[in-house]
Amino acid sequence: MIAKTQFAELAQPLPLDCGRELREVRIAYESYGSEDAPVILICHALTGDAHAAGDGSGEVGAGEIGGAGVGWWDAMIGAGRAFDTNRYRVICTNLLGGCRGTTGPSTREPQTRRPYGSHFPELTVADLVRAQRLFLKRLQISSLRTVAGASLGGMQALQFALDYPEFVESAIAIASTAALGAQGVALNAVARQAIRDDPDWQGGDYYESGLTPVRGLGLARRIGHVTYLSSHALAGKSRDGRLGVEQYLDAQSERFVKRFDANSYLLFSTALTRFELSDEQLRHITQPVLLVSFSSDWIYPPSDSEHLAAQLPKYLKN
Amino acid sequence: MIAKTQFAELAQPLPLDCGRELREVRIAYESYGSEDAPVILICHALTGDAHAAGDGSGEVGAGEIGGAGVGWWDAMIGAGRAFDTNRYRVICTNLLGGCRGTTGPSTREPQTRRPYGSHFPELTVADLVRAQRLFLKRLQISSLRTVAGASLGGMQALQFALDYPEFVESAIAIASTAALGAQGVALNAVARQAIRDDPDWQGGDYYESGLTPVRGLGLARRIGHVTYLSSHALAGKSRDGRLGVEQYLDAQSERFVKRFDANSYLLFSTALTRFELSDEQLRHITQPVLLVSFSSDWIYPPSDSEHLAAQLPKYLKN
Repeated sequence: MIAKTQFAELAQPLPLDCGRELREVRIAYESYGSEDAPVILICHALTGDAHAAGDGSGEVGAGEIGGAGVGWWDAMIGAGRAFDTNRYRVICTNLLGGCRGTTGPSTREPQTRRPYGSHFPELTVADLVRAQRLFLKRLQISSLRTVAGASLGGMQALQFALDYPEFVESAIAIASTAALGAQGVALNAVARQAIRDDPDWQGGDYYESGLTPVRGLGLARRIGHVTYLSSHALAGKSRDGRLGVEQYLDAQSERFVKRFDANSYLLFSTALTRFELSDEQLRHITQPVLLVSFSSDWIYPPSDSEHLAAQLPKYLKN
Repeated sequence: MIAKTQFAELAQPLPLDCGRELREVRIAYESYGSEDAPVILICHALTGDAHAAGDGSGEVGAGEIGGAGVGWWDAMIGAGRAFDTNRYRVICTNLLGGCRGTTGPSTREPQTRRPYGSHFPELTVADLVRAQRLFLKRLQISSLRTVAGASLGGMQALQFALDYPEFVESAIAIASTAALGAQGVALNAVARQAIRDDPDWQGGDYYESGLTPVRGLGLARRIGHVTYLSSHALAGKSRDGRLGVEQYLDAQSERFVKRFDANSYLLFSTALTRFELSDEQLRHITQPVLLVSFSSDWIYPPSDSEHLAAQLPKYLKN
């Protein structure tokens, strides 16, 4: 069982909702479990990547949470875990527009051989899903037992079920919504503003300048991190009290800016802010959908999942 | 009845908790109602000023909310209003360290005649209260019927009652706390970081440079504004849906950076983050205290007021 990142190039240009198309799209992915088993697709959230499981040792499900190189959902994926690699083949891609191996704003454009930067097109959640659908076709995968994710990942799960009813058997949408609420919209807008206000962002064309907008991206991460965590969880991170909270955010921010790209952040933040499924669209999702929400979550509150449950023909509530 | 800003200079140097003292401290204030009536002191929050009531016409309680120049608490202060100017003299000062007439970082230092900037001392809530106590002495006011405020203003009300038991008859602490919770600490830290990350902040010495950190201060305001408003209230501001939320925050931010100073923001944000009253201190507040909190408030949640209520010998809960 190999748990290292692999790459596949889409066989055809990728059409986008904005009317443009992307050529030579490369998708970074990881695959856990037997290639013959039914497939589960895991969709990452705003700041994720393809490395959902494993600890780099080649063993899935062996990693220690928080250790070096451990996948972001290792606790959920592995032998005997929720997404059981003894029974399923679990696949996770780095999203289109990302910065961890898949074609994104930092990739060199085929024509110019210079980084896309500000030329990279805006993406919708449907675009992210379409890229994954073509990637799965490339891997000759003919159906998904389920597609699962949280927040932006949950949006993809819903969109996947809606757009490819013959391909997707079920969906799992965790801490998700049909459309982001006002506080989520506002906080995402502030995070994007922080990036664009950083002089080193340079309108998005910073890759060849030797400067990167680490201050703006660091602020965006701090803003995001406060909202991802409940007050209780955040207090728990802070052994030294109030100073500890600041140090925790500083450390999170410092690590984050080394692994993530500001333009990818802008793309995904915009896509999740604009995501909207109407009641009529939700009623067209006829596959079973498992909904999970958290009472402490005020960006994706349980009321958003209740709204989904009221419209989806077949849901399972957790 | 005159509702325009007046000024008073403290008769003596003001000692601060950090060990330094400030000379020639000027306090901007407004006074509403008869000078013979019992006095109510109103303490403003992070971004307030002395103009708590009136609309600039000289009439208190005549203003239309949202109109030009209307005081920030005009709905509460005036003839027949909660703080009834027919029965009380209501006074509000611009806090020490502010930027609306009272001595603060943008004021010229007595020695050098240049703006304090980074030389302005750090302040505690007890310092803010001490300045107001000396100011009231200067006005020959011998007691307060009550001292009232919300968030940072509520902290001042509690500190005032604790530090000057003979002078303060009662206190009103709205949306307040004995110590800010983890999410409030984190969001304030992010807002301060946004200001310090703006190259135009220049370590705090920007007053004579022709540049001001409007981007950083604007981000701080956006972050703050999201947290001041519940999701419901924010959605109500947004007639045009999600785009409207961004435009609302942009407009708030644009207005704010014209009237507020980044160094004052840093000072007050730090003071309210570091504020802490122990259970023992709370038990020494023997005056009646009215506590008000809002169920939608997650920076100053009702549980914080419940903690106050459990320790304060005499409280009134609303």
